[in-house]
Amino acid sequence: MPHQNLNSVLARIDSDLDASLERLFALLRIKSISADPAFADDCKTAAKHLANDLASLGFATEVRPTAGHPAVVGKSNGQAGKPHVLFYGHYDVQPVDPLNLWHRPPFEPVVTDHADGRKIIVARGAEDDKGQLMTFVEACRAWKNVTGSLPINVTVLIEGEEEVGSKNFGPFLQQYKADLSADFALVCDTGMWDQNTPAITTALRGLVYEEVRIKASNRDLHSGIYGGGAQNPIRVLTRILGGLHDENGRITIPGFYDGVKDLPPDVLAQWKALNLSADSFLKPIGLSIPAGEKDRLLIEQVSSRPTCDINGIVGGYTGEGSKTVIPSLASAKVSFRLVEGQDPVKVRAGFRKYVSDRLPGDCGAEFLDHSLAPAIALPWDMKPLAAAKQALTEEWGKEALLIGSGASIPIVADFKKTLGLETVLIGFGLEDDNIHSPNEKYDLKSFHKGIRSWARILAAFAEAKL
Amino acid sequence: MPHQNLNSVLARIDSDLDASLERLFALLRIKSISADPAFADDCKTAAKHLANDLASLGFATEVRPTAGHPAVVGKSNGQAGKPHVLFYGHYDVQPVDPLNLWHRPPFEPVVTDHADGRKIIVARGAEDDKGQLMTFVEACRAWKNVTGSLPINVTVLIEGEEEVGSKNFGPFLQQYKADLSADFALVCDTGMWDQNTPAITTALRGLVYEEVRIKASNRDLHSGIYGGGAQNPIRVLTRILGGLHDENGRITIPGFYDGVKDLPPDVLAQWKALNLSADSFLKPIGLSIPAGEKDRLLIEQVSSRPTCDINGIVGGYTGEGSKTVIPSLASAKVSFRLVEGQDPVKVRAGFRKYVSDRLPGDCGAEFLDHSLAPAIALPWDMKPLAAAKQALTEEWGKEALLIGSGASIPIVADFKKTLGLETVLIGFGLEDDNIHSPNEKYDLKSFHKGIRSWARILAAFAEAKL
Repeated sequence: MPHQNLNSVLARIDSDLDASLERLFALLRIKSISADPAFADDCKTAAKHLANDLASLGFATEVRPTAGHPAVVGKSNGQAGKPHVLFYGHYDVQPVDPLNLWHRPPFEPVVTDHADGRKIIVARGAEDDKGQLMTFVEACRAWKNVTGSLPINVTVLIEGEEEVGSKNFGPFLQQYKADLSADFALVCDTGMWDQNTPAITTALRGLVYEEVRIKASNRDLHSGIYGGGAQNPIRVLTRILGGLHDENGRITIPGFYDGVKDLPPDVLAQWKALNLSADSFLKPIGLSIPAGEKDRLLIEQVSSRPTCDINGIVGGYTGEGSKTVIPSLASAKVSFRLVEGQDPVKVRAGFRKYVSDRLPGDCGAEFLDHSLAPAIALPWDMKPLAAAKQALTEEWGKEALLIGSGASIPIVADFKKTLGLETVLIGFGLEDDNIHSPNEKYDLKSFHKGIRSWARILAAFAEAKL
Repeated sequence: MPHQNLNSVLARIDSDLDASLERLFALLRIKSISADPAFADDCKTAAKHLANDLASLGFATEVRPTAGHPAVVGKSNGQAGKPHVLFYGHYDVQPVDPLNLWHRPPFEPVVTDHADGRKIIVARGAEDDKGQLMTFVEACRAWKNVTGSLPINVTVLIEGEEEVGSKNFGPFLQQYKADLSADFALVCDTGMWDQNTPAITTALRGLVYEEVRIKASNRDLHSGIYGGGAQNPIRVLTRILGGLHDENGRITIPGFYDGVKDLPPDVLAQWKALNLSADSFLKPIGLSIPAGEKDRLLIEQVSSRPTCDINGIVGGYTGEGSKTVIPSLASAKVSFRLVEGQDPVKVRAGFRKYVSDRLPGDCGAEFLDHSLAPAIALPWDMKPLAAAKQALTEEWGKEALLIGSGASIPIVADFKKTLGLETVLIGFGLEDDNIHSPNEKYDLKSFHKGIRSWARILAAFAEAKL
């Protein structure tokens, strides 16, 4: 039985959409790039901005410091006998470089037309995660405005370090453990299956992210004098990294696949039926040949198989023109997406040994650890899942899918470990949102129907026997 | 018989050293970085500065435009029956990055103490090539000041694009062919054997310098969504470049060694006797293992064998922290030092084919050509060589050596081809001068005795039957 006020709330969302967009834009204008210390004040500004907004809705709100950027906690209680959810989002965004590839300034949001006619919101963070988290906040606003309260008890928790590995989030949860108790968690940082098909994500890949710096000579050298005799750290680095994949796309680090299981035959059959083709998945991004293990389906390559990517590399002269230098240093950022069964500590150790074993005797390697998170598999039979799935299906007119995601959301493991909470992952992102890239966007439809979806989900949680 | 005025000229050089240094400093303060268009005006300023200085010595001087940075031509004639030399230098310098590794601003020259007590001149260009070319200009100044003229006829030609491959120099020589006629050329852009042993360079390696850009997807991607399925151009680039050398340090491009000859047994024996060890050559730069072909002497690796170096590489996220991006582009600068017998056009084609053959079907490669110069072997029996060798030996009190150099000076080929001139290569650089690196320096002794050496050489050319 639908909640008695739901239709009024949905009508309110529709009529309030322009104002909702204005509020999202205000948040998008804040340059809360967590990776760059130059934007630390902007991160504080974003936290305060969100705290003020939640307080205006009647949430009991605090900005709480961490060893890094602050987190925001807001509480709306008082619904005795109703479930209590812990909603998670993050206000920090990825760096914007290369800036010259943006069609407009990344922190000046606009609604514009996609080439195919869709209305899109363009800005850094438009999707990840400001747009997504505001779908939930706006749903709460509509409920509060129409009925004066929320249908369930809600704690909103918004952090500022998701894009840099959430290093201070575990200790934060530990510190406020009692204060953050709830029945289960909600995370809005995932995607839909496609533009018309909503999804709940029930499996996430883990992430090991390493930076490796190769050191050769004690200073930059002239290749005319030393070329041929002195070791070149870029040669060493390319030789080592160039060997990380074999000719079949398989990762060559000894022990890397330890613990990785094949999909159960029935799941594999379901995935085969989804028929994710190179044409549909790779063609829109200008590619045509799946780059992963040749004996796996493309959907396995991007969802259930572990991966290795070089996310950045730099060394020597990279300016215009030429310079005949042999640099003393070269470095790369290398990340691994992990699946259930893999131990991130072991993967990191395996990578470091792989590099060290291949170094010439007069070169050195230094490693920096940027992330160390295991993969997560959530139970497919959680009660909130069924309620949320039904609500999503009603909003979108198409059955919501339960899917695995190649992305990593390390905080889901922290919720389980520290707070004992399972997480329901719902989001409205699309593959072409350009998150972490120039010209990030969020479909206006995702934003609008995302707000409506959350309004329905809150009602469904209130009605369900959870 | 020594020239009658030589001793007075040498005395004048000694007493005028501080003023010579001041004049060098004025030139070093000009930021004439040819690779970076932002410094185009500084290049013009350097050309004008040198033209004014030469004019003040009575040279008939002109700044002549090219399609790039201008060149300076100055003529001092009137010594009928005496040889006519074309002296070549370049006023342009290498970029200064990484700036943070300089101990002081690169364009604020000083004389300071080296750790081992030597007096050194520190600045970008202190050696390459401003310090070196000013040894010749100051020698001319001393002759002019003492005797009112030079002992021989001299055309000074100073270009501004040596550090970017001298692309406009061939056409320039062609244009002014008649005007630049001379008996032979002098180039001051090479080094000594060691701090106490002067040298004349009679062989130079060629240079093929390529930039390669690998293109994969049509935009940057999130590795969480696409990782494992989408090709990563850094993976492609490292795989290709990492295979350029085999385990024995040999370059793997098919046909690369075509035409390369082994040293004649007597030369090999002489080189063996020089006993260039890893300890003496590599230890000062923090290395210990020769990186070239394992079956070759270190002196062969850096002098007579062709080489391949990756001079720069960049792709993806290279800022602080981490970003889970799969970039759409990755690029590298790759150079090859060539020896006699190798065809640079064939080497370039071989490299491009090597890369293209190894590209995944959905990736592309773009190539930029930064240099294409063959190796040079000069005749060891040139008459000016003997005169210059004798003059150098007298100045330094140690027999001057005839040596091969790993560096490339492409203009030597242009002098031969366009003007029909052989070149005598004399310079006073040392291996630890950090040219093309932070903290470039020139020994004060190199500068002072370099000026004296040229004063003697000019006299020797006037006396010799050339």
